[in-house]
Amino acid sequence: MLMNTHEARLDGLRKELKSRGLDGFVVPISDEHMSEYVGAYAQRLAWLTGFGGSAGTAAVLAEKAAIFVDGRYTLQVRQQVDGRLFDYQSVPATSVSAWLGAEAPEGAQIGYDAWLHGKPWVDAVNKALSAKGGRLVAVEGNPIDAIWADQPAPSLAPALVHGVEYAGVSSEAKRSDVAEWLTARGLDAAVVSALDGVAWLLNLRGSDVDRTPVALSFVLAHADGTAELFIAEQKVTPELRAHLGNAVTIRPREAFVPQLQALTGKKVAVDPERSVQAVFTALEGAGAKVVELTDPTVLAKAVKNPVEQAGHRAAQARDGAAIARFLHWLSVEGPKGGETELSAAAKLQALRDESPLLRDLSFDTISGAGPNAASPHYRVTEESNRRIEPNSIYLVDSGGQYLDGTTDITRTVWIGPGEPSPEHKDRFTRVLKGHIALALAVFPKGTVGSQLDSFARQSLWQVGLDYAHGTGHGVGSFLSVHEGPQRIAKAAGGQAGTAQELLPGMILSNEPGYYKAGEYGIRTENLVLVERREFPWQDGEYFGFETLTFAPIDRNLVDCSLLTRDDLAWWNAYHAKVFEVLAPQLSGEMRAWLKGQCEPL
Amino acid sequence: MLMNTHEARLDGLRKELKSRGLDGFVVPISDEHMSEYVGAYAQRLAWLTGFGGSAGTAAVLAEKAAIFVDGRYTLQVRQQVDGRLFDYQSVPATSVSAWLGAEAPEGAQIGYDAWLHGKPWVDAVNKALSAKGGRLVAVEGNPIDAIWADQPAPSLAPALVHGVEYAGVSSEAKRSDVAEWLTARGLDAAVVSALDGVAWLLNLRGSDVDRTPVALSFVLAHADGTAELFIAEQKVTPELRAHLGNAVTIRPREAFVPQLQALTGKKVAVDPERSVQAVFTALEGAGAKVVELTDPTVLAKAVKNPVEQAGHRAAQARDGAAIARFLHWLSVEGPKGGETELSAAAKLQALRDESPLLRDLSFDTISGAGPNAASPHYRVTEESNRRIEPNSIYLVDSGGQYLDGTTDITRTVWIGPGEPSPEHKDRFTRVLKGHIALALAVFPKGTVGSQLDSFARQSLWQVGLDYAHGTGHGVGSFLSVHEGPQRIAKAAGGQAGTAQELLPGMILSNEPGYYKAGEYGIRTENLVLVERREFPWQDGEYFGFETLTFAPIDRNLVDCSLLTRDDLAWWNAYHAKVFEVLAPQLSGEMRAWLKGQCEPL
Repeated sequence: MLMNTHEARLDGLRKELKSRGLDGFVVPISDEHMSEYVGAYAQRLAWLTGFGGSAGTAAVLAEKAAIFVDGRYTLQVRQQVDGRLFDYQSVPATSVSAWLGAEAPEGAQIGYDAWLHGKPWVDAVNKALSAKGGRLVAVEGNPIDAIWADQPAPSLAPALVHGVEYAGVSSEAKRSDVAEWLTARGLDAAVVSALDGVAWLLNLRGSDVDRTPVALSFVLAHADGTAELFIAEQKVTPELRAHLGNAVTIRPREAFVPQLQALTGKKVAVDPERSVQAVFTALEGAGAKVVELTDPTVLAKAVKNPVEQAGHRAAQARDGAAIARFLHWLSVEGPKGGETELSAAAKLQALRDESPLLRDLSFDTISGAGPNAASPHYRVTEESNRRIEPNSIYLVDSGGQYLDGTTDITRTVWIGPGEPSPEHKDRFTRVLKGHIALALAVFPKGTVGSQLDSFARQSLWQVGLDYAHGTGHGVGSFLSVHEGPQRIAKAAGGQAGTAQELLPGMILSNEPGYYKAGEYGIRTENLVLVERREFPWQDGEYFGFETLTFAPIDRNLVDCSLLTRDDLAWWNAYHAKVFEVLAPQLSGEMRAWLKGQCEPL
Repeated sequence: MLMNTHEARLDGLRKELKSRGLDGFVVPISDEHMSEYVGAYAQRLAWLTGFGGSAGTAAVLAEKAAIFVDGRYTLQVRQQVDGRLFDYQSVPATSVSAWLGAEAPEGAQIGYDAWLHGKPWVDAVNKALSAKGGRLVAVEGNPIDAIWADQPAPSLAPALVHGVEYAGVSSEAKRSDVAEWLTARGLDAAVVSALDGVAWLLNLRGSDVDRTPVALSFVLAHADGTAELFIAEQKVTPELRAHLGNAVTIRPREAFVPQLQALTGKKVAVDPERSVQAVFTALEGAGAKVVELTDPTVLAKAVKNPVEQAGHRAAQARDGAAIARFLHWLSVEGPKGGETELSAAAKLQALRDESPLLRDLSFDTISGAGPNAASPHYRVTEESNRRIEPNSIYLVDSGGQYLDGTTDITRTVWIGPGEPSPEHKDRFTRVLKGHIALALAVFPKGTVGSQLDSFARQSLWQVGLDYAHGTGHGVGSFLSVHEGPQRIAKAAGGQAGTAQELLPGMILSNEPGYYKAGEYGIRTENLVLVERREFPWQDGEYFGFETLTFAPIDRNLVDCSLLTRDDLAWWNAYHAKVFEVLAPQLSGEMRAWLKGQCEPL
């Protein structure tokens, strides 16, 4: 049977479940590494339902099915998924566990793939099902894979060496720190199963996942500084083998479970936020003592070493020149009315592609014209593509994966030839004032992101406005553009901040915004680096931010009457630095344009 | 034996413990209601050790004893407590449970008074002792009471009716809300054992505890809207009996435990933060089902009704006039050099006493001259009393308990005739800018205090300075000057904020400060009321602060070059209102002085 409709696929899945004696199954967007972005082979939810967003889950019972998405995808799910097949459900108002608890039959045996879900999720769903005598059952082989005839295979692209000239610290030194961490806690080994953790620890990269340069693999790090890398043999080049050296044993990916099962009696650190249930099952089944701890690579990776910091500065300067070229081009072409969201995104990518150090974009470009930009997470498609209208606001949030650093920048520009309205300028300036207030923040050691988040919102709050996303996320070094554990966001709510104090060397985005539904979206984003600040009398440590991103901010949208002396001083110093950093990379008309953009306000 | 030395008292306690077969005993500053301030009869720690602070604990073993205090009392404990009798211990670096875990002998039976400790404390200490086979044993009768010959009796002062003209809502209506809260949770009754909770719920007040107008008593509130009040019979007047009506059964204080024990099979809400272990023991022993929940009076009490809000405005206006008279007096007498911290505090109290509605101060006046003010919690005594020097900074933090409201205000003034230094003005102005930034904050529903706290610190942080206390605490209505659950403070650390969102009707202090050890202290404090803010386009609810406190802030200490337009506008509008509110209460020279203080900057 050729399953080329979603109805046929859902039918096929139900038959498969029935043949396995299961009353239902849960289909998340996830992989064996709990990645934020997953490879094509793991896009099971898209195959089953047609949903193209980056976060969501389906739950399928014999007679009913539902798809669960958050507020970002309320509209999109209705456009892409057939409501006759799947009920639309909104999280966090409801959840898979609540829905299954209510809808699953008495004594239901609900299948799940233990390689795609974390332990906290499994515990929550089991609890909900147990009220009616049901339970979750880990499947042997994902039933979607059994019926998905043309499922892509996982990528076998080579894993690449990430040289110490970019990484700054050798894998040996990093493994030695992890070994010390294990020894201090009386532990024998740590499971590192998040792909960016593996990449950071072993100084390797890959191209198995779009937009994030990681290689599909697991690591077991031992208390003696050795490690085992579990990876498809086809991905291992001689260069990689030489780079890893004798202290890292390379094993086939299939050896991961047997090696976990060999840890009988050992104390093993596993991060329940980053390791799937199957890892716990294997270890506990073998009689290992599992200790739930945050993966030791998480904080170490977040604090960039001096080589990584220098790499970021270089990458941002290069990326800023591409952005400046793009903004200049847009200032000429935009008012003519011939460009679209797609053509602009393509132009920007072409400009970035001129750098030999670029390996990929760091995420799909958010190219939003007019009302499309009012969705903060908008991704342009052929269907949604909109003309960039003269006399409107255009927002572009984009970034590159360079060998020496990952970039992420948002600029919002006025497309002439007319003038923006007072409302446009008021909202843009309030967002700008928030950006500046955060950029200028100085704070004592121990401060967490939620204590700074309000600086970025205060000018909007003053007039009863806000934005429904966080203000800042961590950024990797030629790794994930979204990286923890630090975060600048509200203290509570759907996208809340974390308890991680900000430390020198951490990189964060600074991206307040404002979105008027159906009309326009505004966001100004630079990356910043936490740095030490010294004062003659200071008692204790103080930190501030070094801005890393350099590209002009649209002066046409600024209402100078709203700026304080400190705001103005920041603007002028920032644009002087923009010119200093970018001018040597530009020439002729482009350079003259930049000079005009960087004149003091 | 007359035990008039602390050595003799400690000896006496050890003999008493030995006779009871106990290996040790713990002596906190606490009462049966877990009050912040306790009556004289409950000052067992002061009697045993000589310590006069408001927070601390002693642990006594056969051969060793220690006293545990926090950073506020590091110096004071060394001045007041004999180090040969008690080792000095600092919390939170150590704790009673950690110390007992390390120092108590194997299998130790450590006594504690279950009427003075919360359940979480008992659980933590028991856990620490159990490692060496020991445990806590609840004593029958406090062993200190057995040897403290001249221990004062608990106050038998009459409990007073707090009329609805001040309370705003009848006790019947409040009990009906509690009944609804119980019913919604399927519960039968709630224990209300915090004294301010009892006072609020039954609209009664008292004079049993210094500075907080409460009456020693417990309440059991039932799901049918009735309540039982447990109170010494001598405290019950005919007026109180009439006020409480038929739905409130008055029982002797001794009937509390028997009535708890009569709740066999009932579901009873108990707040582990506000009820002592003995309450849990009585209920659990009787087979009641204890449900741990926050006392339902806590949030209801924090959100002031319109009558309470109006009462606060009236009380603050009256209190502000007393402060203005005091500041005028100080401006005349201070530069002459003849006043002291004690004489100034007495003068201020005399000015407050002129109001017929004043019942007490709301806390011991913090009257701090020069370096004494560098301790934020300084309390002046005969020993510490310092002359208010000409050409120095003087800080006064004080408040009154008026029938219609509780006040709390801090002013820091320059004592002439000379001029303050640039450093004095810089620090004072940075504290002021923090105060103004918080006063001007607007924020959406859902915001907790830690999201606003940084506004009050940012100007100090900019130059590497901070203050080691919270920025704002809740304030009662003719009740505790420190009231939860809302709080404005850092997200983490020793005096962290809470997860309580700020709601319209809540009152908080706004009191940033700066303290230079050995030199001076600065703090500017007003009370503010959370109020709704309306905007034409707003999506969701927004709140801001109405300032309740009116008294001039010392313009001699302001460095105008540090003020923004918004800062200046706030200052000028605030002082115009100060004059408007206070001038009708003043005349002659005093009024002319006030006019000068309130001129625009």
